[in-house]
Amino acid sequence: MKNVKAAVCIKCGAEYAADDDTYTCKKCGGVLEIVYDYNYIKSRLSREKLAARKDFSIWRYLELLPVEEGSRGLLRVGWSPLYKTDSLGETIGLKNLYIKDDGLNPTSSLKDRASAIAVTRALHAGKDTVACSSTGNAASSLAGGAAAAGLKSVIFVPERAPQGKVTQLLIFGATVISVKGNYGETFRLSAEAIEKYGWYNRNAAINPYLSEGKKTVSLEIAEQLGFKAPDFVALSVGDGCTIAGVWKGFKDLYAVGLIDRLPRLVSVQASGCCPVNRAIEQNAPIKWMDENTLADSIAVGAPRNGDKALAAIRESGGITINVSDEEILAAMRLLGKSAGVFGEPAGATGTAGIVKAAALKIVPADAVVVSIVTGNGLKDVASAQKAAGIDSPAGGASNLLRIAPDMKLLTEEFAKRGIEPLGHNS
Amino acid sequence: MKNVKAAVCIKCGAEYAADDDTYTCKKCGGVLEIVYDYNYIKSRLSREKLAARKDFSIWRYLELLPVEEGSRGLLRVGWSPLYKTDSLGETIGLKNLYIKDDGLNPTSSLKDRASAIAVTRALHAGKDTVACSSTGNAASSLAGGAAAAGLKSVIFVPERAPQGKVTQLLIFGATVISVKGNYGETFRLSAEAIEKYGWYNRNAAINPYLSEGKKTVSLEIAEQLGFKAPDFVALSVGDGCTIAGVWKGFKDLYAVGLIDRLPRLVSVQASGCCPVNRAIEQNAPIKWMDENTLADSIAVGAPRNGDKALAAIRESGGITINVSDEEILAAMRLLGKSAGVFGEPAGATGTAGIVKAAALKIVPADAVVVSIVTGNGLKDVASAQKAAGIDSPAGGASNLLRIAPDMKLLTEEFAKRGIEPLGHNS
Repeated sequence: MKNVKAAVCIKCGAEYAADDDTYTCKKCGGVLEIVYDYNYIKSRLSREKLAARKDFSIWRYLELLPVEEGSRGLLRVGWSPLYKTDSLGETIGLKNLYIKDDGLNPTSSLKDRASAIAVTRALHAGKDTVACSSTGNAASSLAGGAAAAGLKSVIFVPERAPQGKVTQLLIFGATVISVKGNYGETFRLSAEAIEKYGWYNRNAAINPYLSEGKKTVSLEIAEQLGFKAPDFVALSVGDGCTIAGVWKGFKDLYAVGLIDRLPRLVSVQASGCCPVNRAIEQNAPIKWMDENTLADSIAVGAPRNGDKALAAIRESGGITINVSDEEILAAMRLLGKSAGVFGEPAGATGTAGIVKAAALKIVPADAVVVSIVTGNGLKDVASAQKAAGIDSPAGGASNLLRIAPDMKLLTEEFAKRGIEPLGHNS
Repeated sequence: MKNVKAAVCIKCGAEYAADDDTYTCKKCGGVLEIVYDYNYIKSRLSREKLAARKDFSIWRYLELLPVEEGSRGLLRVGWSPLYKTDSLGETIGLKNLYIKDDGLNPTSSLKDRASAIAVTRALHAGKDTVACSSTGNAASSLAGGAAAAGLKSVIFVPERAPQGKVTQLLIFGATVISVKGNYGETFRLSAEAIEKYGWYNRNAAINPYLSEGKKTVSLEIAEQLGFKAPDFVALSVGDGCTIAGVWKGFKDLYAVGLIDRLPRLVSVQASGCCPVNRAIEQNAPIKWMDENTLADSIAVGAPRNGDKALAAIRESGGITINVSDEEILAAMRLLGKSAGVFGEPAGATGTAGIVKAAALKIVPADAVVVSIVTGNGLKDVASAQKAAGIDSPAGGASNLLRIAPDMKLLTEEFAKRGIEPLGHNS
């Protein structure tokens, strides 16, 4: 890979070749970051060249990705839509609000971007099996991407993993190891087995190539805005790998001259589990927290990429916002009702943060703001039911009417609820 | 609309203007079909012009759609990926098998294509409310599309509608009328209310513009294959509107000279509910059937667009294939494992039909075959659990291992099940 210089430890600065099996620093155990040869890339990439490309997937940015030429599997990952949501923006007081719906990726989350890189690198390394420990979107994206690339996948899940998520893995043909233990024990068994059997390791805790995949969401946002960086990019933060990737994407674009300024990151966490934001706010190292939030994809008390996340937020002059579960559920309703976008709780958390930031005037009304919806609402219908109030003590959501098939009853019910049903025909 | 000539009754041939509120024939009650001015379109559309377009959504085919210039709402509908699935093809004995994954549309089904047309026509007509009766993908696509276009939506569902599906509607801000009655009573109440309140009518039983939206899947397939029609296009059939739209798309392309031959349709229904296929096989009119299949999206005993469907299958020299629920579940596993595509039961039914057709040599091994996956597997996790065998009496799916966090136990379990875990490092 002529475009990649090295994998460098973010703690001690030790350098490693980017073409071997090194995942973490062999000296200090620190997380690695992929460093590119920006001069080389500059000579090969321009706005015009990009505009002429017809590959609308993450692979249109090949010069900025740590992969060799070769097979990439079938799935079309990336180039999710960026919607200018004027109605939603108006509701919360922002004139230039965009929603990036990453729930429309092949297995319905942003994690497909990371798994696409993992699968491609595994193929190139001649591995026939990829593995990770996860109950969520990382696992399903890896299992789906592996299946589409003809690789086997082995996924380790704690036994408490929801059956719905395990189901998707089984459908993708993964071998699922349901571990009678907690997440820590599950992770340790996966690490031991990966070591013993020589599988490709997609654990985001240690694989530095995953955030290189995630950064493609930023490359797309910039291109979709006409190679302009937004003023703010808001997203939910769990283990820190995604926000680190988002920041890396903008930094890469800036380094090769495709954008001329950088956005500020808005790191949104659940109030019940916000170790990254707390560390920023207290200007202190990350301390572990309980995991009290219904947004399961970001319920990470011990963030595995915390250091990268802190660096990203600080470098960008970023903002931290913590939101309650109620605010997350409200954001799910707002996204659905005002933009037709259905996000899972962690997917809507970034928007919840922007709602709050706009109300507090932390984000000015005329700023260009992008909120990334990281996962599809169909991933977690139980939480959507909470958001919709379908089982509320008051007898159901205010927009759910239960009546007998009788026009008179319908008319009465509309009147009772103050619904004006008469179609306006302008 | 200079590209549209008229809306013509497929039964008695009566002609109506395509710009009014006429949904069905005022003389005989027959279903209408939209007729285009192909000479006009020919003068404006070419392969080269299409190739130069950067709008990768259904709107790239504007000349072939029954809409005026104007607002279309936010959602990016269409241009779903067409995967050449060699591994899946090899498994079932086909050399040129493609999967069109329409579950990656904004609300996760092919129905988004129809609702996009409905929403656009409602906007142009100055309506502020759209309505339909449905429990499934038509409803969620309409509610999502309406929300994204700033329209209100009213959805009528029978009270037995699954809470998960009702949830998505509520999140999109629809007013949901849960009717204490069966589907017939629900439909009648919706028709009465639509008439009384003047809402835009998205009931596929009567709105002829919906299959014009659905036909865009064929326009895309042809363009994605380099303006070549495949030999066979397989899909599941319920009320008949989708297969009619698929056929219309290819006929339109042929009429304007963008393809030089037509494919044969493969109409796949569930054995427990196959009134359309039975009518073809018996060369008789459609007789209603019970609805005995887990593929809820195609469990339609009284197909509302049966006549259009029969005409499409016959005109194309089509094939009918009926499949059992077991065969549908097997196709779900096959799609997931061999292609990384997760389809709902009705979404995988077309593939189940192709598996059968290939085994019976009805479809030759070297034919170019496209199987359309019409909806995302996340829409119906309960059925996916059946497909995955997660609750099978034998103690779970063969690829699900439940063990304590102990490497020795894992090794033993692999050996017991004949799994060769050793990563192959070529």
